Amino acid sequence: MKIVVIGAVAAGPKAACRARRLLPDAEITLIDQDDLISYGGCGIPYYVSGDVSDEKELRSTSFHMVRDNRFFEEAKGLNVRTLTRAISINRKNKTVLVENVKSGEKEELPYDKLVIATGSRPNVLPIPGVDLKGVFTISSLHKAIAIKEMISKGEVERAVVIGGGAIGLEMAEALTDLWGIDTTLIEFMPQILPNIVPPYMAKMLQTHMEENGVKIFTGEGAQEIVGDDSGRVQKVITPKRELKADLVIMAAGVRPRGELAKEAGLQCSSYGAICVNQRMQTSDPDIYAAGDCVETLNLITGKKTYAPLGSVANRQGRVVADNLAGIPSTFDGVVGSFIMKAFDVAIGSTGLSLEVARKEGFDAVQSIAAMADRAHFFPTQAMMFMNLVVDKSTKRVLGLQGFGKMGDGVLARINAVAGLLGKRPLISDISTLELAYAPPFSNAVDVLNTAGNIADNLVSGRLEIVEIEEFCSWMDGKTEHSDWIALDLRHTKEAAPWVERYSDKWMSIPYDQVRSRTAEVPRDKTIILICNAGTRSYEIQRYLRSQGFERLMVLPGGLNVIRRIKPSWWIA
Amino acid sequence: MKIVVIGAVAAGPKAACRARRLLPDAEITLIDQDDLISYGGCGIPYYVSGDVSDEKELRSTSFHMVRDNRFFEEAKGLNVRTLTRAISINRKNKTVLVENVKSGEKEELPYDKLVIATGSRPNVLPIPGVDLKGVFTISSLHKAIAIKEMISKGEVERAVVIGGGAIGLEMAEALTDLWGIDTTLIEFMPQILPNIVPPYMAKMLQTHMEENGVKIFTGEGAQEIVGDDSGRVQKVITPKRELKADLVIMAAGVRPRGELAKEAGLQCSSYGAICVNQRMQTSDPDIYAAGDCVETLNLITGKKTYAPLGSVANRQGRVVADNLAGIPSTFDGVVGSFIMKAFDVAIGSTGLSLEVARKEGFDAVQSIAAMADRAHFFPTQAMMFMNLVVDKSTKRVLGLQGFGKMGDGVLARINAVAGLLGKRPLISDISTLELAYAPPFSNAVDVLNTAGNIADNLVSGRLEIVEIEEFCSWMDGKTEHSDWIALDLRHTKEAAPWVERYSDKWMSIPYDQVRSRTAEVPRDKTIILICNAGTRSYEIQRYLRSQGFERLMVLPGGLNVIRRIKPSWWIA
Repeated sequence: MKIVVIGAVAAGPKAACRARRLLPDAEITLIDQDDLISYGGCGIPYYVSGDVSDEKELRSTSFHMVRDNRFFEEAKGLNVRTLTRAISINRKNKTVLVENVKSGEKEELPYDKLVIATGSRPNVLPIPGVDLKGVFTISSLHKAIAIKEMISKGEVERAVVIGGGAIGLEMAEALTDLWGIDTTLIEFMPQILPNIVPPYMAKMLQTHMEENGVKIFTGEGAQEIVGDDSGRVQKVITPKRELKADLVIMAAGVRPRGELAKEAGLQCSSYGAICVNQRMQTSDPDIYAAGDCVETLNLITGKKTYAPLGSVANRQGRVVADNLAGIPSTFDGVVGSFIMKAFDVAIGSTGLSLEVARKEGFDAVQSIAAMADRAHFFPTQAMMFMNLVVDKSTKRVLGLQGFGKMGDGVLARINAVAGLLGKRPLISDISTLELAYAPPFSNAVDVLNTAGNIADNLVSGRLEIVEIEEFCSWMDGKTEHSDWIALDLRHTKEAAPWVERYSDKWMSIPYDQVRSRTAEVPRDKTIILICNAGTRSYEIQRYLRSQGFERLMVLPGGLNVIRRIKPSWWIA
Repeated sequence: MKIVVIGAVAAGPKAACRARRLLPDAEITLIDQDDLISYGGCGIPYYVSGDVSDEKELRSTSFHMVRDNRFFEEAKGLNVRTLTRAISINRKNKTVLVENVKSGEKEELPYDKLVIATGSRPNVLPIPGVDLKGVFTISSLHKAIAIKEMISKGEVERAVVIGGGAIGLEMAEALTDLWGIDTTLIEFMPQILPNIVPPYMAKMLQTHMEENGVKIFTGEGAQEIVGDDSGRVQKVITPKRELKADLVIMAAGVRPRGELAKEAGLQCSSYGAICVNQRMQTSDPDIYAAGDCVETLNLITGKKTYAPLGSVANRQGRVVADNLAGIPSTFDGVVGSFIMKAFDVAIGSTGLSLEVARKEGFDAVQSIAAMADRAHFFPTQAMMFMNLVVDKSTKRVLGLQGFGKMGDGVLARINAVAGLLGKRPLISDISTLELAYAPPFSNAVDVLNTAGNIADNLVSGRLEIVEIEEFCSWMDGKTEHSDWIALDLRHTKEAAPWVERYSDKWMSIPYDQVRSRTAEVPRDKTIILICNAGTRSYEIQRYLRSQGFERLMVLPGGLNVIRRIKPSWWIA
């Protein structure tokens, strides 16, 4: 059997190598138009930052062999052709027309089974100046090497990153943290990580990045990139400002490279991704496809989606190999798991954000838990935030977003839910989720269990909350709510400066005195209950409701959230 | 409604406080025989070590209020009676007879609903000397305070910990690490953490603890504890040695305090745990029970089990409160999640170990993955070990054990599987588990996915392994296998000292040269394939099998496992 695999970065080599192990007699040819293959593209920001010193590390095995042509030929037993572009597929004759990108020489490669793993290409903004010297996308190791060369030669004083998704944010950190480059990130949408985390959490991340030196402007797109006479980039123009730059990185997402498949008559999505079934077969049963070039299924919405991730590509590549060998493995779809480091914090997500869930027609609400990531008496404890998205009517869990100290603590909660999400979990599955517990790792009631408990209280109507954005707007004086008053349940000394500054709308009764001082709570106001995490507020909401108070709202996540947003009215 | 809750450590306060929030008009009384209540018992080792400086921190809220009588009365709105022991339950009259442990005064407390949360008591070994001064169990905060007092007065030079479960190991670390006490731990079973992790992983942990100064003897029980004339402990005697000690800690497990329930005629298990349904109701529908005193269900075996854990107690307490208030919540059972810090490593488990799975009648095997915990090019990467236990015939996942660097990395994998285990996952659920991925957190193919892939190869017969213990025994010369030879696939320079020392049974062909040097591989031997992680060995096993070799065995986890066991024949 002759197997040809087009594309040698992630899904392609995975499919080829496992096919080799399963089908010892097959003739397997791996082709790629590039000369650098099988690299960890997600590692590019860490290579640029200097955390990874040599690009070879991104394309080495854990036992320090470089994954080049020789490696795949000698160690893996494949035929490898780099600098070889696939031009067209002749499905009738079962051949691929390839061209040597250096010599221009063409050749027909016969196949019994074909694997398309052509990946994605970065979006280039439709604005002037994208071709200037010093303007890059993060599309290949070559570009990464060129960027790092510019930086290490001292050619970059100021950089602009366009795009506030994961890659843009990681690149902004890389430039700022280790190289001290004056870096500005702009994001067209009103928040960074749009559609991935809720606005308040994006703002927490933004504040943290700003405190570490990255300037961030949201709701602001690039209109033009301007260069000097020599064709070098000089500045980026937005509707609000001009940003000087020696280096511009466009990180505006990617789109599938599906042209080869489409021209061969294979079924593709409207945006060019190759359609595959669960066995990763295209509309031609002898042709498989995997990785960034294919469309997949969102297991929560049941709709088709695009999930260009190295982790997905590798798992799909394995499924391709299995099916080539007659093993009926399937790749059923994705829930959309995500995690990112940003300076000293980790932020992650799995499943749907509230915004996306509502767009998809769910009757969604979110519960916010703010709690120590481990036993609060354990010395290394730090605040962790869990945002659980649930469907109100069915109590189904739709997604989780998390924010905490850098380390694997956020990962531990995201992974716990990621594993479950495909099984249609309910809120009670999260409340009773049996996470491993010991004081150095978690609380007896983990922050994730708590997020489940809060969601339960929320959908059953026992907990009523004020939207964080609405609360901030009221405190800012932007929204008038003349009948609102904040009841601060913290210790008197914590509340005092707030009462002093916001006396017209801020009062203090410590949590443990509310039962004995109920008479002081105004009955003609809507009471916004304030504490650090939202826990004391919920308890007092329950108590006051039992005392006939009706207009009560808890600030979810409490001042622990507000503290990390640092609005203008924050008292340090 | 009158609710009486007996026991105020974990499940009791949880049930009482939530009942308060759900039932504002109920009269809720919380009683406990102790004066220190609502403390984090799992924090005791960290209090003894000094990580937690004051015992009050173990019984404080995250907002630094001490959870004493006043707190539960004023902040939570409960009636609290400490130093009050429940003597008997009159189910017909619905009263509890209680006694003030100081004054001896007795009283009948009426109830409409009763909650029993009497917890557990530590096992005391049936050997002489357990009552000597300086011999402790870890059963209450009072004992912890007494131990720490002894230590801080400088009265303890040498300590013996009896029992190699989590608490014993944590206490051994606490004594050694921060106080520098000469500490010996003895465990009656052949390994520490028996039935929780596989023997090789227990041995990795033991080696690490020994390197940090804890002496550990397994397969060795205490026969007698000997004291001096003043009744102070002097030494512990085992069949093999005498261990001098100023302090002895018995950490030999706990058993339920079910007597009160049993004497009231409630259904209890043979070992004294209270039987409850999923709503935590005892055989008397007006009496609930939760926490260390109840029996629960193992969701994997479907059999009754005993799971005395603070995390379980809290979740059960919440379910009790819900049902008191007419909310039909259930606690369905446990999978048995566990995690522990030991010096610089974390070790965790969820579900069944291989040993337990086989005892339970499963046709179980285990796959061992040894891999970097994050991208191998990321600077902070460290080796992580995942041991996945699966049923061979059904491909069902039964359990996972993990070992890695201290931090939340092991937790992130244990939690991912813990969430799924109740949903009867298959190996393919682990292979395709969509863990969140970015280079600072994981690999594109996570070590957990890899454990799934290895399990898949194992149960399908594509991978054949040698048992680690059998391999070690052969290397030690304890087991004769004259037809075995180790084929070392590492770099020549890594393999050289091994070939030199073990020339009769050790040969070297680097991984990427096997295809061109196949003729050198002996056809009359059973070939044990050796590399660092097992990955290269598996690939070469596939290749050599395709070349007609039949007797091939991979050393699972490779020398990365052996290195951490440090057998006598190890070459540093």
